Amino acid sequence: MEKITKISIDMMGGDFGPEVTVKGLNHAFKKLENVQANLFGNENDINSVLKKYPSLIPKVRIHHTETFVPMDAKPTDAVRRIGKESSMWLSIDSCAKKESDVVLSAGNTGALMALSKIILRTIDNIERPAITALWPNPNGDSVVLDLGANIDVSSNQLVQFGIMGYAYAICVLKKENPKIAILNIGHEDTKGSNDLQEASERLSLIFKNNFIGFVEGDDLSKGTSDVIITDGFTGNVALKTAEGIAQLMAYYTFNTLKSSLAGKLGMFIAQNSFRSLKNKIDPRGNNGGFFLGLNGLVVKSHGGTDFIGFASAIEFSINLARSEISEKIRDLIGDNI
Amino acid sequence: MEKITKISIDMMGGDFGPEVTVKGLNHAFKKLENVQANLFGNENDINSVLKKYPSLIPKVRIHHTETFVPMDAKPTDAVRRIGKESSMWLSIDSCAKKESDVVLSAGNTGALMALSKIILRTIDNIERPAITALWPNPNGDSVVLDLGANIDVSSNQLVQFGIMGYAYAICVLKKENPKIAILNIGHEDTKGSNDLQEASERLSLIFKNNFIGFVEGDDLSKGTSDVIITDGFTGNVALKTAEGIAQLMAYYTFNTLKSSLAGKLGMFIAQNSFRSLKNKIDPRGNNGGFFLGLNGLVVKSHGGTDFIGFASAIEFSINLARSEISEKIRDLIGDNI
Repeated sequence: MEKITKISIDMMGGDFGPEVTVKGLNHAFKKLENVQANLFGNENDINSVLKKYPSLIPKVRIHHTETFVPMDAKPTDAVRRIGKESSMWLSIDSCAKKESDVVLSAGNTGALMALSKIILRTIDNIERPAITALWPNPNGDSVVLDLGANIDVSSNQLVQFGIMGYAYAICVLKKENPKIAILNIGHEDTKGSNDLQEASERLSLIFKNNFIGFVEGDDLSKGTSDVIITDGFTGNVALKTAEGIAQLMAYYTFNTLKSSLAGKLGMFIAQNSFRSLKNKIDPRGNNGGFFLGLNGLVVKSHGGTDFIGFASAIEFSINLARSEISEKIRDLIGDNI
Repeated sequence: MEKITKISIDMMGGDFGPEVTVKGLNHAFKKLENVQANLFGNENDINSVLKKYPSLIPKVRIHHTETFVPMDAKPTDAVRRIGKESSMWLSIDSCAKKESDVVLSAGNTGALMALSKIILRTIDNIERPAITALWPNPNGDSVVLDLGANIDVSSNQLVQFGIMGYAYAICVLKKENPKIAILNIGHEDTKGSNDLQEASERLSLIFKNNFIGFVEGDDLSKGTSDVIITDGFTGNVALKTAEGIAQLMAYYTFNTLKSSLAGKLGMFIAQNSFRSLKNKIDPRGNNGGFFLGLNGLVVKSHGGTDFIGFASAIEFSINLARSEISEKIRDLIGDNI
């Protein structure tokens, strides 16, 4: 018999709560085999949606929680004031206790990171976890980290990010020979801060030709490298900038076409193509990020996502749990730090 | 009689030299009145293209130079090894000597910045000049700085960037009441480094309600603020990331449409709309950046631009020269630093 993969879900996270999380779970579990879910949140709220999906009921176990972390809570409040009874805390805790293989929340990112660090702690010799996400390019995806957990990072931490990203590229993206690069403002060795230059020297000793040096912002979307590492400030600005430009381009495209009769007719005839384009650039298909470097796998879905986006985050989480990424990170860190 | 606006042009800059710069000059000067140009570069090379445009000849003066700064030269080489005889050096120098109102080059950005700092020096009480550019949004453009001149910036320098951007928004963008913001990884006051927080406090004292606080990467394309300031590392990564995403989106759009017959037919019918879209997002229309904070106006055109892009950089330069931005920066700095 196949091993069952278990996921803990913070059902109260996100802007819409169980209405979206339960529907998303049903959508995802119809496609997945050998899965079970531990659901954390208000039992009544969860059951009132769950009863619409009877086939889902045998695959879930509800853990009633009295409180949850609001979307606008400060991380310190999530830790101290709201504390150990929230759906977010308890879902992470179940992962720490090995009752689940992965935890998923659409809640507040800062709170999720703060609780994850306290409850799961970092892998030995990893100083800080990193927010990680996939960045699309014409040939697939690159893995980019850190996207906002650490404003200031040392060369040591950058090296650790490189190792974690490499492990992800091997174990989850299934790349045989992943390339690693550091985000900088030029390709030359002399560019950037001392920390970037030190990290570059150390990564080239560890990864030899798999470390390709410095890349620039436009390389993120070109697939120049499978793994691109950066500090959390730069990474977060780059990610949000990309979201803004994608929206602006979509605005330009549809507004320009809608402004003429020929444009409207062209759009009407090509409507299937536009739909497939929309799916391609739909953030719901590549929903959210994940935290690397902890003794446990934590996935963060977008707070404003709908059930399709949440379902894709569930599929992503199960896939992550079935990889051997944590073991790979421990091996690589042990050999190189 | 109208005052004549004079521009000094490094004719040897860019990937294509006089072939593009002279043709671009002709294209721009057909539209502009009361303009003259001081052209720096190889006289024979310039003349061999110039003879195709006889109406341009009375409006230009050629200053023969023996050398030029190659596109891949290091800034230190441009200063020391190539030195004072290059077309780049002499075109900036003519601006320092008030023989021109603005200088334009499509050459190497690092070299242009290094020579500009040495020859023009910064405005009193401005520590370092900033690379500045316009960032499109659905309602117009925002001015963003620094985009790569300064990796590490102090809170002082950020305040100076704010003042320079504000002056630009008033004098060139003709905004009556420009808003200023600092790029950060969240809107809350507690986000970001100490330097960002100090700069925020000082800018809110100087600009009162015109300072709107922290914005995020996606605000760059939303027009949330007329002026957005950042350090040169983050700004450069954001700019290049935006270029990469715009290319990726264009790739997705055209590839998706081309992949089906209906898509192709739709594109054919809407071809004028697509052409107008292409013009809208064409980087040649908003070509390059400019340096703020120097005793002289320096405009940097993209190195790989064609004559249309170079012509638009000439128009941009003349418009900048006709504004009173340098006076405005001096006034504001005098009152506030």
